[in-house]
Amino acid sequence: MSLKVKDLCNIIEDFAPISLKEDFDNVGLMVGDREASVDAIMTALDCTMDVIDEAIEKNCNMIITHHPILFKKPSKITMDTLLGKKIIKIISNNINVYSAHTNLDSVKDGINDAVVNILGFDKSSILAKNNKAVKEAGIGRVVELEQNMTLKELCDRVKESFKIQSLRYCGDEDKKIHSFAVINGSGQDFFEEARKRGVDCIITGDTSYHYVSDYNEMNIAVIDAGHFGTEWPSVVVMSKKLEGALHKMGINTPILVSQNNIDPYKFK
Amino acid sequence: MSLKVKDLCNIIEDFAPISLKEDFDNVGLMVGDREASVDAIMTALDCTMDVIDEAIEKNCNMIITHHPILFKKPSKITMDTLLGKKIIKIISNNINVYSAHTNLDSVKDGINDAVVNILGFDKSSILAKNNKAVKEAGIGRVVELEQNMTLKELCDRVKESFKIQSLRYCGDEDKKIHSFAVINGSGQDFFEEARKRGVDCIITGDTSYHYVSDYNEMNIAVIDAGHFGTEWPSVVVMSKKLEGALHKMGINTPILVSQNNIDPYKFK
Amino acid sequence: MSLKVKDLCNIIEDFAPISLKEDFDNVGLMVGDREASVDAIMTALDCTMDVIDEAIEKNCNMIITHHPILFKKPSKITMDTLLGKKIIKIISNNINVYSAHTNLDSVKDGINDAVVNILGFDKSSILAKNNKAVKEAGIGRVVELEQNMTLKELCDRVKESFKIQSLRYCGDEDKKIHSFAVINGSGQDFFEEARKRGVDCIITGDTSYHYVSDYNEMNIAVIDAGHFGTEWPSVVVMSKKLEGALHKMGINTPILVSQNNIDPYKFK
Amino acid sequence: MSLKVKDLCNIIEDFAPISLKEDFDNVGLMVGDREASVDAIMTALDCTMDVIDEAIEKNCNMIITHHPILFKKPSKITMDTLLGKKIIKIISNNINVYSAHTNLDSVKDGINDAVVNILGFDKSSILAKNNKAVKEAGIGRVVELEQNMTLKELCDRVKESFKIQSLRYCGDEDKKIHSFAVINGSGQDFFEEARKRGVDCIITGDTSYHYVSDYNEMNIAVIDAGHFGTEWPSVVVMSKKLEGALHKMGINTPILVSQNNIDPYKFK
Amino acid sequence: MSLKVKDLCNIIEDFAPISLKEDFDNVGLMVGDREASVDAIMTALDCTMDVIDEAIEKNCNMIITHHPILFKKPSKITMDTLLGKKIIKIISNNINVYSAHTNLDSVKDGINDAVVNILGFDKSSILAKNNKAVKEAGIGRVVELEQNMTLKELCDRVKESFKIQSLRYCGDEDKKIHSFAVINGSGQDFFEEARKRGVDCIITGDTSYHYVSDYNEMNIAVIDAGHFGTEWPSVVVMSKKLEGALHKMGINTPILVSQNNIDPYKFK
Amino acid sequence: MSLKVKDLCNIIEDFAPISLKEDFDNVGLMVGDREASVDAIMTALDCTMDVIDEAIEKNCNMIITHHPILFKKPSKITMDTLLGKKIIKIISNNINVYSAHTNLDSVKDGINDAVVNILGFDKSSILAKNNKAVKEAGIGRVVELEQNMTLKELCDRVKESFKIQSLRYCGDEDKKIHSFAVINGSGQDFFEEARKRGVDCIITGDTSYHYVSDYNEMNIAVIDAGHFGTEWPSVVVMSKKLEGALHKMGINTPILVSQNNIDPYKFK
Repeated sequence: MSLKVKDLCNIIEDFAPISLKEDFDNVGLMVGDREASVDAIMTALDCTMDVIDEAIEKNCNMIITHHPILFKKPSKITMDTLLGKKIIKIISNNINVYSAHTNLDSVKDGINDAVVNILGFDKSSILAKNNKAVKEAGIGRVVELEQNMTLKELCDRVKESFKIQSLRYCGDEDKKIHSFAVINGSGQDFFEEARKRGVDCIITGDTSYHYVSDYNEMNIAVIDAGHFGTEWPSVVVMSKKLEGALHKMGINTPILVSQNNIDPYKFK
Repeated sequence: MSLKVKDLCNIIEDFAPISLKEDFDNVGLMVGDREASVDAIMTALDCTMDVIDEAIEKNCNMIITHHPILFKKPSKITMDTLLGKKIIKIISNNINVYSAHTNLDSVKDGINDAVVNILGFDKSSILAKNNKAVKEAGIGRVVELEQNMTLKELCDRVKESFKIQSLRYCGDEDKKIHSFAVINGSGQDFFEEARKRGVDCIITGDTSYHYVSDYNEMNIAVIDAGHFGTEWPSVVVMSKKLEGALHKMGINTPILVSQNNIDPYKFK
Repeated sequence: MSLKVKDLCNIIEDFAPISLKEDFDNVGLMVGDREASVDAIMTALDCTMDVIDEAIEKNCNMIITHHPILFKKPSKITMDTLLGKKIIKIISNNINVYSAHTNLDSVKDGINDAVVNILGFDKSSILAKNNKAVKEAGIGRVVELEQNMTLKELCDRVKESFKIQSLRYCGDEDKKIHSFAVINGSGQDFFEEARKRGVDCIITGDTSYHYVSDYNEMNIAVIDAGHFGTEWPSVVVMSKKLEGALHKMGINTPILVSQNNIDPYKFK
Repeated sequence: MSLKVKDLCNIIEDFAPISLKEDFDNVGLMVGDREASVDAIMTALDCTMDVIDEAIEKNCNMIITHHPILFKKPSKITMDTLLGKKIIKIISNNINVYSAHTNLDSVKDGINDAVVNILGFDKSSILAKNNKAVKEAGIGRVVELEQNMTLKELCDRVKESFKIQSLRYCGDEDKKIHSFAVINGSGQDFFEEARKRGVDCIITGDTSYHYVSDYNEMNIAVIDAGHFGTEWPSVVVMSKKLEGALHKMGINTPILVSQNNIDPYKFK
Repeated sequence: MSLKVKDLCNIIEDFAPISLKEDFDNVGLMVGDREASVDAIMTALDCTMDVIDEAIEKNCNMIITHHPILFKKPSKITMDTLLGKKIIKIISNNINVYSAHTNLDSVKDGINDAVVNILGFDKSSILAKNNKAVKEAGIGRVVELEQNMTLKELCDRVKESFKIQSLRYCGDEDKKIHSFAVINGSGQDFFEEARKRGVDCIITGDTSYHYVSDYNEMNIAVIDAGHFGTEWPSVVVMSKKLEGALHKMGINTPILVSQNNIDPYKFK
Repeated sequence: MSLKVKDLCNIIEDFAPISLKEDFDNVGLMVGDREASVDAIMTALDCTMDVIDEAIEKNCNMIITHHPILFKKPSKITMDTLLGKKIIKIISNNINVYSAHTNLDSVKDGINDAVVNILGFDKSSILAKNNKAVKEAGIGRVVELEQNMTLKELCDRVKESFKIQSLRYCGDEDKKIHSFAVINGSGQDFFEEARKRGVDCIITGDTSYHYVSDYNEMNIAVIDAGHFGTEWPSVVVMSKKLEGALHKMGINTPILVSQNNIDPYKFK
C-alpha cells in the first residue's frame, strides 16, 4: 500500500495531536506537498545539512525531525543563511519535511515517556500538565524510585541508557535520590515546578550556570545529559513506533534513522 | 560581461540603499543565491504564480519585484499555502527573487518621483521626509501646479498617464486643484501629512470608505487609481532605468517586463 | 404616544444588545440626552455634515447611524477638525445621535442577514460566531447556493440588489460559484475564515490590493461592492424594521431615511 | 481692538509654547471656534459646571482653565456623564474653552515660578528640567533659603500665601528647613528628584499615605496644601499677566477670575 | 503551647486565604523564618522604623502589618534607602514580618467588614466581588441606611468611630445620605463601581483633587478620613480577632498593638 | 589607613563606572552600609552560601562578587528561598556585599580584557561597542592571531589558561583558527555579532544546543569553557588589581579570593 505525505501527517497527528503543542511552538508539515507520495522516510532530531545530504543519498523524500526546521520564520530564503541553504536544498531535491515537537514531547507514550522507559523506569507522573489538552499530556515526568539510588548511580544509568560518553552534573555523588524529574531537551523553564514537587534531582539538557549554581545550593542535583543526549534515544524509539504503526496498516515504506545526525558537542 | 546576482543587488542598492526602507519593510535578495549568474531578468510589481510561470517560460532566472514576496514571513513552506507554492516553484526552477520596495519608493528619482514624471510633472517636494536617510528621500511627493487643473482634468490625466480604464475618486469634478500629493500604493498613512500641507487632492491606491468619506467632507479630493494602477507604470520606468545602468556597464543581460502581472481588480 | 431617546435606545438594544458589539467598537447613544423626547428620526450610514444639515432642515432631533460618530474619541472639539464641527453643529441644534454598529451587524436578522435577503437569499450560516453572545450572533454570513451561479451572474445580482452602478471584482467571469461569504463594510479581517469555509467568492467592501491579489491567485473570487454599497441597503431595511417596531407600540414618530447620505466614491 | 479666539491662543502660546507640555498632557483650544471673537474671558482652575454657569451668567464666551477639560477623551457626549453635560452646555452656549496646563506649569515665569513668588521668594532653580524644551522650562522649583525657617513657619507661610484655612503636613514642626521643593498640583512623580536634590521639605498637593509615610521616615517634611490650594493663586496671577499682555496690545477684553471655582475639599 | 511562625501563617491564611489577594499585591511571610518560634507579636498598619524599634524594645520577634513591607521589591538592601535600613534592622534583630493586605481587606469579616462595624453598622454588601474567590469576598462594602443621615452626621460618625480629629470631605453638609460605600485605604479605583451602585457618599482615604472635584459635581459626597484613619481601627480589631483565635487554641503568645504606628499626616 | 565601604565603592567605580553596565543589569553596593569600615574583603564570582560561610569564618565583612546577588529582586526575604537565606545570613553577620558585573566586563582592562590576557594574547578589539559609554568599552573581544592555531590547540590553550579539566566544543579539531571572539559568561546574545565579524571560533560559556548546532553547521567552532570557567580566572586577576590599587593608596585591608566558590558543574 503506497503512502502519501498527508497520510503520514494524519498517522502522526492521531498519536500526537497538534493541539498539544506549546504556544511558542511550530509543528506539522514544514516543507513540501501533502499530495506527494512517500518513497522512504528519514528520521532525525534536527534537519541539519548532513541529514538532508544523507536523505538525498538514501532516496528518502520525507524527513521527520523532532525540532521544527522553521522554528524561526525566515525573512530571506537565500544561500546567505544556513536556513536558506537548507530550504533551497530540501525543495531542490523534492524532499518533504515534517516536525513533531512539543506535542510529541508531552503526549502519553510520547518522547517524555520514552525517556523514562529508556532510563529503565515504567511509572511516572506528568510534571507540568497541559490543561487545554483533550488527551492526558504535559511536559516533563516525575519518577518516584521504589529503591533510592545515589546520584552517582543515576548518572551512570543516564550515561548507559542514553549511550553518551560524558555528561555534566552538580550535587554530591553519594546523594540519595528518591525521586527525580526528567525534561528532555531544554528543561530549565520547568525547574521551579520540579522543585515544588520536591524532587531530589532533575535530568535535562541545555542547563546554564546560574540555574545549576542555585539548584546545587538548594541541594537539588542536576544531571545535564545534553539536549541531544536526552532526546536522540527517543527519536529512535519514536521511529520504531512509527514503523510499527505503518506495518500494522500494511505500509512498508522504509524508515531510516539518520546516521549523520550527531551531537555537535564534543567533550575534551 | 556576465552578471552575478550579487552584482545586480549592488547596482540596485547603490541607487536605492536598503537603509532607506521603512521599518516595517523587508527588501533585498528574497530567495536565491548571490553567487548565481543571471541569465535574464523579469521585472514585475508582484511575484504572482503567473509571473513565476512566465519567468520559467522565458528562461528568466532572476525576478525583480517591487512588493517583497516574503513581506509576511512563512511558518510553513508547503503546497497548502499560496506563498508555499510560490517558494517551492521558484526554488525548484532555480530562480532568484529580489525586491526593492519602500527604499525604491522614497529614494530621489525612485518610484515616487517616477509617478510624478509619468503624470507629466517634473517638480515636486517630498511629503514625509525620511530623517534617518543619508540621501534625500521620503515617502510621497507634493506637486504645486503652475496652472490650476479641475479635478476632472486631473482624473483624466491620471487615467491617461497610468493607462487605466477606470478609477474611483471623491470630490466635485469642477474643484480647482492647485496642489496635490501623490503616494503610490497604499497611501492612507500619509493622508494627515498631506492635509497639513494644504493639498487640494491626494492621488493614491487602496483607499477605504471612512478615510474617503472624511476627506471628502474636508473638501480634499481623493483619486484612487488603484495600488496596481499607481505603481505598475513606475515598475516599467524602473526596469528601463536598470537596463540603462546595465548597458552602461557593458552588461547585456535581457530585462523583460512581465506581461502576465496584471491588476487583479476588474471594474463592472 | 410620545417617544423619549431612552425608549428608542431600549427598543434598539432589545433587538441588538450592546453586548454583541466587537471589542474595538463604540455603540449606543453617542451625543445627546436620554430624557429628551424624539420629534423625528433620521437614519443614515454615517453622520456626515450633509446628514446633520438634512436633519436640521427636516426637524429631526434624532439621528441613528450604523457607523459610530465617536469611533475615534476626540481630544479636541473645535472647528479645526471635521469631527469637532460635527459635534458642535449637533449639540448647537439639540440633536441626539445614536449608533448601532457591530452589534447590529452580527445579531440574527440584523444587517448581515438583511444583506443576504437583499441579495435574494434567505438561508445562510454565521461565518465568525460570537462565542460570548447570549443570542445567536456573529460577523459575516455564508450562503450555499442550491443552483450554482457564474461570477458574472453574482456580480450582476449584487449591482442590482444593492442598486449600485459600478463595483470592482476579481476572478474569472465564468467561474462557478457554489457558495459565497458576505461581510458588509470592511470584511478583510474575516477573509481567512471564509477561505477555511471553502467559499468560492467573498462579497464585501474596502478591499485592498494585496488581499485581492492573493485571493485571486487562490482562485477565490472577490466582489468589492463598496463599504457604502454593501451597507446602505440594510440601513434602509433596518429603518423600516424600526418603524414597524414603533408602530406596533403605537408610536408614530416619523423615521426619515437620509437622502443626503451618499457614497463619497464616484467611478470614472 | 477686538480679539479673536485664535489671537488669544497665539498670545498664550507665545508665552507658554505647546511644545513644553508633558507627553501625557492635552493643551490648547479644547472646545470652540478659532475664528470666533472673544467678548469676555473667564479664568479658572477647572471647567466645572459652576464655572460654565458663571461664564454664561457673566457673558463670558471664553473660558481659560489650567486643567484641560478633555484630559480624558470622551467616548460618549451625553447627559449620562458629567463631561457630556459640560460639553453640551458649553457648546449650547457658544462658549470657547482653552487650557494651558503643564506647558504653563513649566515655562519660565509660569505657574511654578508664580507659586514661588506667591510664597514670597524670588530665586529658585528648576527641579526636573524639560530637555526637549527650546525655552528654559521644567516641572517644580527648588528654593534655597538664605535664612532657615522651621517647618511650622513654612506651613504658616504656605497657609497665608495661598490663603487656605487648613493643610496637611508631616514632619516635626521645629524641623529646620534650608531648602524646599514646590510642585503645584500633584507632585508625587517628582518626589524622588526632590529627595536627590537634598531638600528638607516638599510643598505640593494630592499626596498619598505611602509616599508621606516613607518621606516622613526619611526625615523629609511634606506640606500638602492641596491641588487647588497650590494652583488657584497662580491662576489669579496668570489672569492678571494675561490681562496685562492684552492691555499692552490695546485689547480691553474683560478678564474675570471665576468666583465659583472653589476647592471641593472641606476640612472638618 | 508554643507558637511557630508557620503556625501563625496558617492561622491567618485559614481566615484570609492568600488566593483572595488582588493581582498587584504581595502578602504572606515577608521576612524571617517559618521555623522560628514566636515570642511576642506586634501588629501595625505599617512596618515603619518606629514600629521596628518598638518591637525590639518590647521583645516582639513577630511583626504583623496590613501593608506589605516588600510591596516594592528592592534592587538594593543598603543603608542608602529607607527600605534597606528597615530590612537590615529587622534581620539584625531576628524579627519575622508578616503582611495580610488585600486578602484581609476583602475576606468576609475582614478589614472591610470591620470598618462597617466600627462605623456602627452590621449589614453591608460587597462592592466589587472577587469572582475568582472560593470564599465570598471582594473589595469595598455598601451600606443601605434604614434611616437617612445627613452628610454632617456621617462625617461626625466617621470622626468618632475612627477616633480621628480631622477629615476632608466634599458635598453639602445637609445632603441626605441613604446609602454609602466604604473602601478602606486608597479606594479611588472603585469609585466608578460605587457610582454605578447609586451610593450618595463614598468613605475612603488618599483621594485626589480631580476625582473629588468630579464626584462633587456628580453630587456624590466623598469623606476622605485618611488611609491611616480608615484602616488603623480595623488593625486593632484584627489584632483582637487573632488574639481570640490563638487563645481558643491555648496559645498565649502576647499580641501588642503598636503604640508608635501613628498617622504621618498632621492637620494645621 | 582604614577603608570604608563607600571608599571601596568609589575605587571600583572609578575603574568601572556604573554607567557602563548593560540596561538589564544591577551593580553597585547590593547589601550593607556605605559608612561601615571594611575589615577584610573576600572576592568571588558568586555570593553562594559557601562563600558567605567562608567570609564569616575568615572575618571578611565585605564580599565583592562579579554576579549581582540581587539580579532578581526578591518579593520575599525568608528562609523559604535560597536568596532569602543568603540575605538573612549576610545581614545577620554584618557583611557588606558589592557587585561589579557588566560594567566590569566591558571596561578597558576589565574582565573581557583579562580573559584575553589569561589566554596569552595582548591585542584584541571590542566585539560589541557600548555607544553610550564615556570610556572605550563594550562586551566581548576579538583576537586576530598572528599565527593560526588549530581548534585542538586553542582548546588546550583554554583548558590550560583557565585551569579547567574539561570543556565542550564543536568543530573539527584540525580547523584553522585565524581569529576568535571571547565573551566571558553567557555569550550567545553576541554570537551573531561575532559571525558578522567573520571569526573562526567563539569562546564562551552557557551555550545551548540549537546555537551550537547551527554555528557548527556554519563552520564556526564554539568552545564552551563554562560560565564559571571563563570568568573565575579574571575574578582572581581583578582581586589582585584591586589589591594593587589599595596598596598604592596605603590601604592594607586584606583581600582574600574565596576558596569555596567552585564551579557547581562536574563532568562524568
